[in-house]
Amino acid sequence: MLKDITCSSEINPEEFKRFKMKYNGWVDRINEELDRLIPENNSPQGSIYDAMRYSLMAGGKRLRPVLAIAVSEMLGGDIEKVLPFACAIEMIHTYSLIHDDLPCMDNDDYRRGKPTNHKVFGEAQALLAGDALLNRAFEVMAESISRVPENAVEGVNAMRVIAEASGTKGMIGGQVIDIKSEGKAIPGELLLYMHKCKTGALIKASVLSAAVICRADTETMKILEEFVECIGLAFQIKDDILDVEGNSKVMGKNTGSDAAKSKSTFVSVYGLNQSKKMLLELTDQAAGCISGFGEKAWFLKSLTKYLAIREM
Amino acid sequence: MLKDITCSSEINPEEFKRFKMKYNGWVDRINEELDRLIPENNSPQGSIYDAMRYSLMAGGKRLRPVLAIAVSEMLGGDIEKVLPFACAIEMIHTYSLIHDDLPCMDNDDYRRGKPTNHKVFGEAQALLAGDALLNRAFEVMAESISRVPENAVEGVNAMRVIAEASGTKGMIGGQVIDIKSEGKAIPGELLLYMHKCKTGALIKASVLSAAVICRADTETMKILEEFVECIGLAFQIKDDILDVEGNSKVMGKNTGSDAAKSKSTFVSVYGLNQSKKMLLELTDQAAGCISGFGEKAWFLKSLTKYLAIREM
Repeated sequence: MLKDITCSSEINPEEFKRFKMKYNGWVDRINEELDRLIPENNSPQGSIYDAMRYSLMAGGKRLRPVLAIAVSEMLGGDIEKVLPFACAIEMIHTYSLIHDDLPCMDNDDYRRGKPTNHKVFGEAQALLAGDALLNRAFEVMAESISRVPENAVEGVNAMRVIAEASGTKGMIGGQVIDIKSEGKAIPGELLLYMHKCKTGALIKASVLSAAVICRADTETMKILEEFVECIGLAFQIKDDILDVEGNSKVMGKNTGSDAAKSKSTFVSVYGLNQSKKMLLELTDQAAGCISGFGEKAWFLKSLTKYLAIREM
Repeated sequence: MLKDITCSSEINPEEFKRFKMKYNGWVDRINEELDRLIPENNSPQGSIYDAMRYSLMAGGKRLRPVLAIAVSEMLGGDIEKVLPFACAIEMIHTYSLIHDDLPCMDNDDYRRGKPTNHKVFGEAQALLAGDALLNRAFEVMAESISRVPENAVEGVNAMRVIAEASGTKGMIGGQVIDIKSEGKAIPGELLLYMHKCKTGALIKASVLSAAVICRADTETMKILEEFVECIGLAFQIKDDILDVEGNSKVMGKNTGSDAAKSKSTFVSVYGLNQSKKMLLELTDQAAGCISGFGEKAWFLKSLTKYLAIREM
């Protein structure tokens, strides 16, 4: 939800209002669907649903599913077709946060202003809740594909895009490099590669899986790939800047945590000023990529701008 | 591999020889395919592949993939079509063992005679190796489906069967009940339900997903469902008996671990004699279920017998 964010001077108030309304409308639809896909349950193992829902419904930005839906709308696709995949991506993102927060990983106590999953449900159930969200993500995609057999090929291809992005060549691979680099200064090239895997890959999959479902042609796929590589990297640089300059109350988590853990970040490697310059350049480049879509790209352009000026 | 197991007096030596050759031939094919699907890798995150392979190639019985292949052969299906799904199930089984062994779960130091994954690779990488195996399982299924688009619907349905079995209604659900029951005496009914979820569901999915890929009719599905429910339960009862009576050297893990952890087992709830009686009855019932397939069912009948007399 973007409800609590005020309009920055760098974005036109009317445009921001229109953007915010659209964004929040989609977030409502996504939340409604996530709630339906992982309902409360009173079987003997019902507590696992509580643990899954605790993190899944904790009010994240829903950036990845919104991106998927926005791409689908821009390409003239049916939003309801992309929604199960968008929700699956959010489940995968949430599982990665639960596992990342565990004591054997980042050992974080707070996330989005609330105690982390293992602080509430214990380590064993938090581990299983993460596993269950990843498993459910693929189950949801498979269910969606078997409901519309005539689009099975696009659906399976979209699933492959997502699975590759969340696996060892993508998100998990990035996490491996992250834990192995902790406490070390790493070269800029490896930092870039790590973030391309750790956060970039799933953001990219949000855009490209939606494009696959909309049967986008090769040229469109190429444009969207460049666009999302820019915003994925910009997103991470902004995160690193916020960890230094952000307001911990607004963000719902401690700032300065990267430095405390001696993690290499864009700020520690390139400095604050250079990082801000890179953020601006990537934001401009992203907007340029999709300019050919004209008015249809208005939402993605606003989103790109918003991601660079967000306060959380 | 069954290579080191001698023939018991309860099984005809000629039949056992034929069974063992067939079983081991399939295990070789499964191992070859698993090795191909998760190869060594020297990217910056290459160590995660080592961690995945360490547990995946640790010489498990491969019961689940062998079951899938055996059902496919009995139904006249193409074994190569079912192989990616069989391998995916083995990946899911392996990830569940890695996560189960973690300190926050069962905290086990040995598995199949070797130090557990986290003892070798550390907790963080063991956690991620488990995640990566689950993720790769679905990626492998999706890749296989998109290679043969004309069978996409059966493939996606088989994937749904597997995803449901490994999720909160199946394996993960059973693990939740297991961790919540530790140190407590639980009623026989809940014990049955727990094992139906924890081990039974994925064994069942091995049989039913293969049947789905072979386009088995409703009557065949029903027969196979009863068959696999019997052997799934028999398998767990035998495990509990082995934990009391087994030879830890043969099994490659400590016996008596259930009692040490005050876990409820079939032996602790029903006693050793009653458990052995249940095992025999279930074995007979399973063999009876598939008698209608005649000579085509020979392998599954031998397997059923073998599962009841195995020493590990």
